[in-house]
Amino acid sequence: MKLVRNQGVTAPSGFRATGISAGIKVSGKPDLALVVNEGPDLAAAAVFTRNKVKAAPVLWTQQVMTTKHLRAVILNSGGANACTGPLGFQDAHATAEAVADALSDWGTETGAIEVAVCSTGLIGDRLPMDKVLGGVKDIVHEMAGGMTGGAEAAQAIMTTDTVPKQVALHHEANWTIGAMAKGAGMMAPSLATMLCVITTDAVADADALDRALRAAAGRTFDRLDIDGSCSTNDTVLLLASGASEITPTQDELDAAVLAVCDDLCAQLQADAEGVTKRVAVTVTGAATEADAVVAARVIARDSLVKTAIFGSDANWGRVLAAVGMAPVDMAADRISVSFNGTPVCIDGAGAPGARDVDLSGVDISVVVDLAVGTGEGTVRTTDLSHAYVEENSAYSS
Amino acid sequence: MKLVRNQGVTAPSGFRATGISAGIKVSGKPDLALVVNEGPDLAAAAVFTRNKVKAAPVLWTQQVMTTKHLRAVILNSGGANACTGPLGFQDAHATAEAVADALSDWGTETGAIEVAVCSTGLIGDRLPMDKVLGGVKDIVHEMAGGMTGGAEAAQAIMTTDTVPKQVALHHEANWTIGAMAKGAGMMAPSLATMLCVITTDAVADADALDRALRAAAGRTFDRLDIDGSCSTNDTVLLLASGASEITPTQDELDAAVLAVCDDLCAQLQADAEGVTKRVAVTVTGAATEADAVVAARVIARDSLVKTAIFGSDANWGRVLAAVGMAPVDMAADRISVSFNGTPVCIDGAGAPGARDVDLSGVDISVVVDLAVGTGEGTVRTTDLSHAYVEENSAYSS
Repeated sequence: MKLVRNQGVTAPSGFRATGISAGIKVSGKPDLALVVNEGPDLAAAAVFTRNKVKAAPVLWTQQVMTTKHLRAVILNSGGANACTGPLGFQDAHATAEAVADALSDWGTETGAIEVAVCSTGLIGDRLPMDKVLGGVKDIVHEMAGGMTGGAEAAQAIMTTDTVPKQVALHHEANWTIGAMAKGAGMMAPSLATMLCVITTDAVADADALDRALRAAAGRTFDRLDIDGSCSTNDTVLLLASGASEITPTQDELDAAVLAVCDDLCAQLQADAEGVTKRVAVTVTGAATEADAVVAARVIARDSLVKTAIFGSDANWGRVLAAVGMAPVDMAADRISVSFNGTPVCIDGAGAPGARDVDLSGVDISVVVDLAVGTGEGTVRTTDLSHAYVEENSAYSS
Repeated sequence: MKLVRNQGVTAPSGFRATGISAGIKVSGKPDLALVVNEGPDLAAAAVFTRNKVKAAPVLWTQQVMTTKHLRAVILNSGGANACTGPLGFQDAHATAEAVADALSDWGTETGAIEVAVCSTGLIGDRLPMDKVLGGVKDIVHEMAGGMTGGAEAAQAIMTTDTVPKQVALHHEANWTIGAMAKGAGMMAPSLATMLCVITTDAVADADALDRALRAAAGRTFDRLDIDGSCSTNDTVLLLASGASEITPTQDELDAAVLAVCDDLCAQLQADAEGVTKRVAVTVTGAATEADAVVAARVIARDSLVKTAIFGSDANWGRVLAAVGMAPVDMAADRISVSFNGTPVCIDGAGAPGARDVDLSGVDISVVVDLAVGTGEGTVRTTDLSHAYVEENSAYSS
């Protein structure tokens, strides 16, 4: 398996994509992306936000995904179409209809029920549907006319992202996965909305895709936690064209999808809003892996831990205070902690030189041993910086 | 009932207190406080942090409180004596012994098991016990010599607090409650450690005190949530001297203790680290009161909501996104939200003019109706500001 970052959703055979400026963003920047599966297969799987407040495009795409079948994905930035009521849902539906009509006009017979819709941006406003519907015609026209490019699509879904995120995996058995993502946070939880489209030319049915995607998301996107907030719009889609005519084993597919999701996670973490540090919180010695992830998440969300790391301050006591609130078994008087590989707390008390550990670098590793079992898990997070406060106190204005 | 803020723990009859500089803080600021109950009763109750990682003084004082009986409380700032292992526990014990010995020397026969110990400051370092034990002798000497003052005690327990917090309640039936607190956060959860000593000259047994204190803490301190972090040292003590010879009814006692705790909560909220806004998040229409508090807490902890409020930005969509992650029943398409009394979201969609609500003031009210029941509850919080990041990224250095 070989990962390449300058290729995305059009790396596998059978996919076309592009991105355009449709005028949804007032800035005039690219804001509409389209990914089309040209087959022969149209198998697909998806995971969505766990938020009870779901945006209209999520509600629409959940209906679409009951068919386990996708021809196309239309994605817009510049507006989340969330908390927009029944009219917002009609807008998402109308967008899918418009994509289906335009694709059908260009010779690819498509129904609205084959079109997933993803949106990202400010919550609470209706989308400018004249711009969206006009944009749909234009983007299908451009794509059908040969203007294909995963890079343009990846660009068009950016919001506060500073760089587009793409990756492709070329398997030695001659099949490929491609992917793009946007977001400065994650599935559940999430900072800004996370949208991700993964494509493959492998032959795989919807159930195989579903298994691979759920397993990978559970170990990657679900363990990236920038600020504990979770979007109304998070969507990850996996589409298979079968164009390579190669059928990987389930294990091969699982491993490849995991590798792609893991790489996208690292890209998302590195570009999170206001990040100055990339932090990996690993909990070991938990009763179970699930307990380890819960405890790591509690630490990763703790504002006092995150501000200390922003200040390159080896304030390990805050890690103890944070983990002590995790609803999991632990031996409080035998907990040990290390920062960047150096023990700072042993059996619940400070280690010599603990305050002097150098945290001035960008990558910070925090390892906490709960001393009750063998479960372990890692959650990725970032520091809590002035830039985070600045960016998020002025986002909607 | 009348609340007075320039009086504290020595307002009720039967209590003496003072605070001194013992040299525990390198700054030389006051760092040791003593509160003594001169009786005739020595009944007491306590609530403690729910953190599984408990500081040595908490472990000590939990043992003391099994007797439901307290002669004195010694409190230090300048060090939390948390995560200090068995030696830290010995330090807490030795401090209680020293207080007992010194009080006995001055004619008040006292055992260590009658002395509660509270500490606040940086986690992970042993206390300078020479300074602590010398300070204990000095403080008992000063207090016994007539240098009594709740104000000095309130001053000596401050850490990042910018003002001391005291309040007294004079009941029309001629009994009194006094209290002091420190902290920029709360019980569970908590920002910095919260310590609170409440005194009364009412006649009340330990069970009556326990009932009043638990009920009040559950509705006040437990519903103040600055940043979701919870200290290893949080302790609230309630001591009754019986010196007024008045026995209030349980309802009278409950109401008075609640009023005192509520006032201290408001003082703590107003002085929280880096606060520029005081925010009350009320959830109504929940299935139960407990559900309402859970949902309000999820909103109150959400970094995106808190940064938006810092920016005076009426970004109500973030409130919807936050509450959607609360593990409680809600009708997502009927949720309504108001800011400062103005509806911004009705039935899950934006209200006209929602973005223009003026949030430039210091006091912000957020009310969220989940539309499934009659349960309601309020959690107090603050915004997430640059000052918060600044203060907490440099605390231990």
